[in-house]
Amino acid sequence: MVTNLVMHEKFMMKAMELAKGGEGRTNPNPLVGAVVVMDGVIVAEGFHEMLGCAHAEAAAIKNAKSDIRGGTMYVNLEPCSHYGRTPPCADAIVQAGIKEVVVAMEDPNPKVSGRGIGILRDAGINVITGVLENEAKKLNEIFIKYISKKQPFVIMKTAMTLDGKIAAATGDSKWITGEKSRQHVHSIRNRVAGIMVGINTVLKDDPSLTTRLEGKMGIDSVRIIVDSSGRIPLEAKVFNIQSDKGVILATTSKISKDKEALLLNKGVTIVKADAVENGTITGVDLAKLMDELYKLEIDSVLLEGGGTLNASALQYGIVDKVMSFVSPKIVGGVGAPTPVEGRGAELMKDAIFLKDVSIERFDDDILIEGYVNNYVYRNC
Amino acid sequence: MVTNLVMHEKFMMKAMELAKGGEGRTNPNPLVGAVVVMDGVIVAEGFHEMLGCAHAEAAAIKNAKSDIRGGTMYVNLEPCSHYGRTPPCADAIVQAGIKEVVVAMEDPNPKVSGRGIGILRDAGINVITGVLENEAKKLNEIFIKYISKKQPFVIMKTAMTLDGKIAAATGDSKWITGEKSRQHVHSIRNRVAGIMVGINTVLKDDPSLTTRLEGKMGIDSVRIIVDSSGRIPLEAKVFNIQSDKGVILATTSKISKDKEALLLNKGVTIVKADAVENGTITGVDLAKLMDELYKLEIDSVLLEGGGTLNASALQYGIVDKVMSFVSPKIVGGVGAPTPVEGRGAELMKDAIFLKDVSIERFDDDILIEGYVNNYVYRNC
Repeated sequence: MVTNLVMHEKFMMKAMELAKGGEGRTNPNPLVGAVVVMDGVIVAEGFHEMLGCAHAEAAAIKNAKSDIRGGTMYVNLEPCSHYGRTPPCADAIVQAGIKEVVVAMEDPNPKVSGRGIGILRDAGINVITGVLENEAKKLNEIFIKYISKKQPFVIMKTAMTLDGKIAAATGDSKWITGEKSRQHVHSIRNRVAGIMVGINTVLKDDPSLTTRLEGKMGIDSVRIIVDSSGRIPLEAKVFNIQSDKGVILATTSKISKDKEALLLNKGVTIVKADAVENGTITGVDLAKLMDELYKLEIDSVLLEGGGTLNASALQYGIVDKVMSFVSPKIVGGVGAPTPVEGRGAELMKDAIFLKDVSIERFDDDILIEGYVNNYVYRNC
Repeated sequence: MVTNLVMHEKFMMKAMELAKGGEGRTNPNPLVGAVVVMDGVIVAEGFHEMLGCAHAEAAAIKNAKSDIRGGTMYVNLEPCSHYGRTPPCADAIVQAGIKEVVVAMEDPNPKVSGRGIGILRDAGINVITGVLENEAKKLNEIFIKYISKKQPFVIMKTAMTLDGKIAAATGDSKWITGEKSRQHVHSIRNRVAGIMVGINTVLKDDPSLTTRLEGKMGIDSVRIIVDSSGRIPLEAKVFNIQSDKGVILATTSKISKDKEALLLNKGVTIVKADAVENGTITGVDLAKLMDELYKLEIDSVLLEGGGTLNASALQYGIVDKVMSFVSPKIVGGVGAPTPVEGRGAELMKDAIFLKDVSIERFDDDILIEGYVNNYVYRNC
């Protein structure tokens, strides 16, 4: 039994490694990899490479170099049972003559969860579930949130000094973290569907918000600018760089018709999400915005905001994960900005406590990660 | 040779473990332990238990259970060569008939460094130096700073949320960190000679600043209150608790004669250190204060200040080590206080970069430590 478990985990690990090959290309689909094993040897492997392409299971069956009838398939997500962009994988597995399927996690969509496994079992295939389930859930934390809550998975990324500042009192912020940390952020940009900042960041830094990876092509994310009254200049870099991804302006009914027309003319997608208090528009309702982003099939957003937008995002309850870089330097300054501002909690005991906290080092910088809304380790 | 080195390190490690038995009791003396080895077996051990008591070498010789003539002594600091509170250890070692002495580091006092070793070598004893030298320097980082710079070693301790706050915007700060982190702070209080806060902390929190350890008696530190105009109330807890250590009020000539008399009457030590700018007293000159604390034989200070005092301490260049606890929670608040305030650096590149950064976890809290003025790894 122990030997079997070790073997199962080894091949599931391989399937998950393959799955990562689709990072940034499969959204809003999950990352899935599959291997077929005959007599302890991998004879076929495949992964979901890109949205619209074959699913991992179909790819593995197609890539098989020898006969796979009677083999065992390892796949990190329950095979699908429905016709979507591609035909159902469960059927393909049955037709290929696979005799055993090892699955890491069930489909997180409660409406279809268990159906793919049902098809396999009905066809007499032995199905083993739960092998490296936690790892598989972490790998697809974006997909799990997106499918179960119908909103994108939001990662709030901050970078501060050891005295809690995201810039000097003068506003200078180049750089808080080192090269390795910044490369890591670009690898996250490469993974997510959208990257979101507030209008103040655009006015102050005029960032391009593209993905720049060392040594390989980065995949840009949709650039989402939260700008309640449409103050963004048409000359802003986000509109005027070469990128195969567009810009979404998250605004309100306060934007002028003229500005809206000019932006639409530039190909910008305008999403209005009014937050209203006592009949007055107070800003962008970020929860409504997330509902709209879901409809646009944006499954994940990297929030790289300043203290005001971050506070608002936490208040609206849209943040799932926090990635906080801490650089061991001290800049000081009573007026220097901090990662989360807004009104704040009145008592320390009412702070938001992160769960499943982990630490990683990037040279001297320390990355502290944790979850606010943890869909991965909950039953969904 | 390799075997010898492993053996030397093993016994030196033992000497350093013994040395720690004196933590908090030997100041301003160093922590020193010694073992004597005969035929690969420890036959005597001793450590410097308390200021005024026998040095480690003399203690080991006295504690020997069998003949130590011809043995090898391991000691983490060069044996002393002068008459201080006790007679010179180098002479005692010669008289005891030890044939070999292994030393981790030389005396950091440039005036006497090498003399103890000289006495041993002149007597025909084989002396090996540099075994676990870095570890030995770290163990006595307080002593090294105190002896070489004639000022106490200052540890700036801060505790903040993951969004850089040391309290909520309302001022509530109970608690930032968890029980384990707070216990660790008390173990540092137990180690240092002084603990320093600003008058604002006293007025806001009225702390007792005592050492509270779980399961054993803590050693209080001298409580140092920075209070430039003598605003501290006579009812403050720091004056009115049971403690075998006293209070130093670090103030300026601005304090009233009456207040000074009342405080002296309560047994408070008054240290005046005027910071003067254009003929006006602007506050306490912390560098001058450190000179005065040195004269009072205070070899180490744990600074548990707020953002203003911390900024001032960094500006005066008195901080040696930073201990920054980060608790993975988010409290928010644009007005919430941060670990270091004051004027701050204008550019991020002018921030103070910590050296020799290390990380430790206390439950969910993360302790990030680093050095500002690194006397340990420099040649002193």
